[in-house]
Amino acid sequence: MTNTPSVSASSPAVARAAEPGEHRPRSLSLLGLGAMGTALARTWLAAGHRVTVWNRTPARAEPLRALGATVAGSAAEAVAANDLVVLCLLDDASVGETLAGAELAGRDLVNLTTSTPADARVWADRAQAAGARFLDGGIMAVPPMIGVPEAGGYVFYSGSAELFAAHQEILAVPAGARYVGEDAGLAALHDVALLSAMSGMFAGITHAFALVREADVDLGGFSGLLADWLVAMARVAVTEDQHAQKAEQGEDQGDVASNLAMQVAGNATLLRTAEQQGVSAELLTPYMELMERAVAEGHGDRDGSVLVELLTAH
Amino acid sequence: MTNTPSVSASSPAVARAAEPGEHRPRSLSLLGLGAMGTALARTWLAAGHRVTVWNRTPARAEPLRALGATVAGSAAEAVAANDLVVLCLLDDASVGETLAGAELAGRDLVNLTTSTPADARVWADRAQAAGARFLDGGIMAVPPMIGVPEAGGYVFYSGSAELFAAHQEILAVPAGARYVGEDAGLAALHDVALLSAMSGMFAGITHAFALVREADVDLGGFSGLLADWLVAMARVAVTEDQHAQKAEQGEDQGDVASNLAMQVAGNATLLRTAEQQGVSAELLTPYMELMERAVAEGHGDRDGSVLVELLTAH
Repeated sequence: MTNTPSVSASSPAVARAAEPGEHRPRSLSLLGLGAMGTALARTWLAAGHRVTVWNRTPARAEPLRALGATVAGSAAEAVAANDLVVLCLLDDASVGETLAGAELAGRDLVNLTTSTPADARVWADRAQAAGARFLDGGIMAVPPMIGVPEAGGYVFYSGSAELFAAHQEILAVPAGARYVGEDAGLAALHDVALLSAMSGMFAGITHAFALVREADVDLGGFSGLLADWLVAMARVAVTEDQHAQKAEQGEDQGDVASNLAMQVAGNATLLRTAEQQGVSAELLTPYMELMERAVAEGHGDRDGSVLVELLTAH
Repeated sequence: MTNTPSVSASSPAVARAAEPGEHRPRSLSLLGLGAMGTALARTWLAAGHRVTVWNRTPARAEPLRALGATVAGSAAEAVAANDLVVLCLLDDASVGETLAGAELAGRDLVNLTTSTPADARVWADRAQAAGARFLDGGIMAVPPMIGVPEAGGYVFYSGSAELFAAHQEILAVPAGARYVGEDAGLAALHDVALLSAMSGMFAGITHAFALVREADVDLGGFSGLLADWLVAMARVAVTEDQHAQKAEQGEDQGDVASNLAMQVAGNATLLRTAEQQGVSAELLTPYMELMERAVAEGHGDRDGSVLVELLTAH
């Protein structure tokens, strides 16, 4: 709820949209009008800002023109129109194609296109070489969450702290803005890390629903229990992993409440139950195998944090 | 917070421990004094109940004797000592060995040993044939959560509704008690489904921590963001899956906010980032492959619920 930017990765600042009437109208250009870009444009227009838009397929700009947007005839024209230039394109290759003929000197480039940390660092270098400031963003929301503060969506930002400080108010209009550091790759790294964890959770949820699918189980009651359980265990697991990793170089983590040897012993029940219910265990087995490997390597009395090391061991 | 038992699987009842002084002392036998059995015994003793204990290795019973427990000389003696007999053993085979010489007629058997739904149904049949009532339990807690109501642990129970009604007050002393149906296999099915989902989430969390391990990221800040994200997404995913499965035979689920085709398109960024950070993607790939299979089979415009069907397709 602060409007003070933080340039420290250790305490991500959250910038939120100003109250209506509190902010002054600003101008920006937005390139890329897919579902996400369109949602962003609508939110900025609704908040009274002046938005110049461009899209490779021009037809997608017309509904925004009707809402007051200026439609640029080319990407270069859109880049030239405003100091603040936001990109929300299909992929990293599209960013290169779109900016190919544009004059970047003096621009404040904000790239919300889905990217990897390395992609973001390449663009930060290119922008600096061209005399522009650069900020990479990773959007933790789907389009329906944009402009809906209660939906809790937000955007990770990393790169130029000066750019973030200069524009954080307008950047925070569509969704909360969290600055995570000067290294331009950190926003994508945070984005991908959270999405990867979610992917694992979705895999587990898929398996759980498959198990009960043909049983006499009310899905409403089961879903509530499953959500409550995951919510409780997410907090436990993340806290434990964080503590364990801080101590990983030092103390013995032995004799934890549920160590790897105990978890491995429990896997047989999970696998037999899947078989009884006619469910493929393919989504669970790699994690079980990683745990078994850790136990085989003598880490049976440790907790799950040792798996992080095994996953990164080269 | 109700003390009324529910015999409907569609609205699991939660029984909680009575306030101190509210309950009358009861007697029960407990077989199996591993970490969990010991925690259960301590909680019942602390609440003023009379507990007869037995363990294959007798030395584990001595600390409980000091707390007022009666130590039985054999499993059969422990079973004979009280109507209510709780088993908390290593595995299903241990249950068979432990009960081999015991007279079960007239007993109320509660099996908290980790088991599969099929194991539980076998014991329900054996108990009935022997003239006993049977309840299977699946403990959703680790030993340190037993007797700590604020830790939120609970036990799924299924099987004899009459047994649950007769003993729910004492059963709810160590942790909340949720009755999920007459089919004795339902407690284990709920237990395993929730543990399986947790396993997937832990796999995702492991990958996420591995990604940021060597980056300039403060683990405290990152852990909080990760937990908040998983908590928000757990509720979204479970609700969507529940709705989608209810409608699975009927309506078209097309054009959802984040359909499978969009998720598959995003996987490349997750894989490239893992490679950049030197992290094996082994924990993420089976779910990605399942999504790709669904898209290849023409389900690109559907949400994750179609994956549940693919996982159970024989």
